[in-house]
Amino acid sequence: MRNIALIISYDGAKYFGYQTQDGFITIQQVMEEKISKMTKEKVTVYGCGRTDTGVHALNYLLTFKTNSTVPVDRISYALNALLPDDITVKKAFEAEDDFHGRFSVRRKTYVYRILNTEFPDPFKSKYTWYYKYPLDIEKMKEAAAYIVGEKDFICFMASGGQVKTTVRNVDELKVEKDGDEIVITISSNGFLYNMVRIITGTLVYVGCGKLKPADIIEIINSKDRRKAGITAPPNGLYLKNVEY
Amino acid sequence: MRNIALIISYDGAKYFGYQTQDGFITIQQVMEEKISKMTKEKVTVYGCGRTDTGVHALNYLLTFKTNSTVPVDRISYALNALLPDDITVKKAFEAEDDFHGRFSVRRKTYVYRILNTEFPDPFKSKYTWYYKYPLDIEKMKEAAAYIVGEKDFICFMASGGQVKTTVRNVDELKVEKDGDEIVITISSNGFLYNMVRIITGTLVYVGCGKLKPADIIEIINSKDRRKAGITAPPNGLYLKNVEY
Repeated sequence: MRNIALIISYDGAKYFGYQTQDGFITIQQVMEEKISKMTKEKVTVYGCGRTDTGVHALNYLLTFKTNSTVPVDRISYALNALLPDDITVKKAFEAEDDFHGRFSVRRKTYVYRILNTEFPDPFKSKYTWYYKYPLDIEKMKEAAAYIVGEKDFICFMASGGQVKTTVRNVDELKVEKDGDEIVITISSNGFLYNMVRIITGTLVYVGCGKLKPADIIEIINSKDRRKAGITAPPNGLYLKNVEY
Repeated sequence: MRNIALIISYDGAKYFGYQTQDGFITIQQVMEEKISKMTKEKVTVYGCGRTDTGVHALNYLLTFKTNSTVPVDRISYALNALLPDDITVKKAFEAEDDFHGRFSVRRKTYVYRILNTEFPDPFKSKYTWYYKYPLDIEKMKEAAAYIVGEKDFICFMASGGQVKTTVRNVDELKVEKDGDEIVITISSNGFLYNMVRIITGTLVYVGCGKLKPADIIEIINSKDRRKAGITAPPNGLYLKNVEY
């Protein structure tokens, strides 16, 4: 049996997240249905992690085992012809037998986009968090610097996450301006439940003056979710890539 | 009675065009409903023209008469609070009594976006025409130059348009690269039915080699719609602005 890996991109606006849930349309369910149609087998896919309802992905990796002989360089074309417009296969390749998109992850990068303008943009409502009040990006950058490093990030974890340890190594956290948007890029060896969205909400609290940059130190030390900012909405969040 | 003009932007993906049609959701219908709610009157709006199903607008002008005393600088905020996420009021101002967004138009500009990549982009399916084969942009620019000017453009008109004359003055027609997209910008004192989409389809025929740039001369002289290219789909089209 071959172990095929796919890199896909999806607009998560109308999906109830990645993982299969009875009665709700999810990315996993659509991928399994279309891959099964292509291979004429009942296929199970293994993704590189969950994404929540409304969250997007630029390069999401998943694998599946198959006896099908479809050449690997035809798989992207064959699947894209079957998939809906909001999911695209960007690449397909044969992986080692024991390669698993979730357990082998070394590092993930997420991007969060905030639209910061006087009026909302009708084309961006599903693709950014619209925040109308002025944000001080320099202060947000200063705050971001306090987050980088290997730390216990339990203050940035939503309840519902089940993990052995809440220590993670955030090795990059950039806050940049891109036209009318503020773009936060964060890389880590792993993320706690809702971690990027809570970090974003906390950086926005700094940007609007509710918190000072140095308050981040205290928030992390407190290990208390209630000290951090709000959970930013899902629609501005993109899984950018996964490294192995 | 005051005559209020609004500049709105809308993502037309889920609307059956601008103009009210029984049983279908349109921009005009939503605007009238929300403005009536704000002013507590039954309001009729007058738009700057029709846009088809799936077509977008960056700066669409419409007017309405009202006895309401809502200050003009509060109208945008009040309406944006009522409108769905895919329609935004960008500006509101008081216009002369006899100003009418449709009859006073001097010039309109449309933009058409073509995504020209090997694989489709799931975030752009409703906002660009996805065309996968290579396009020679230099040839498209050359062809575009033959279109500019005051001419009878009946070859670029879909049936169903009712007009006194099919002569229009296209004073600008740019073809540019913007990342993975080819962007066509066209300005004219008026447009025939589906004119921008047929011109776009014809330029794509030139870009992919089905037509030569100089064939445009013959197409225009033939006055025959069948000589021109296909009608590009609505989802790549944006009304950019209207001048008075």
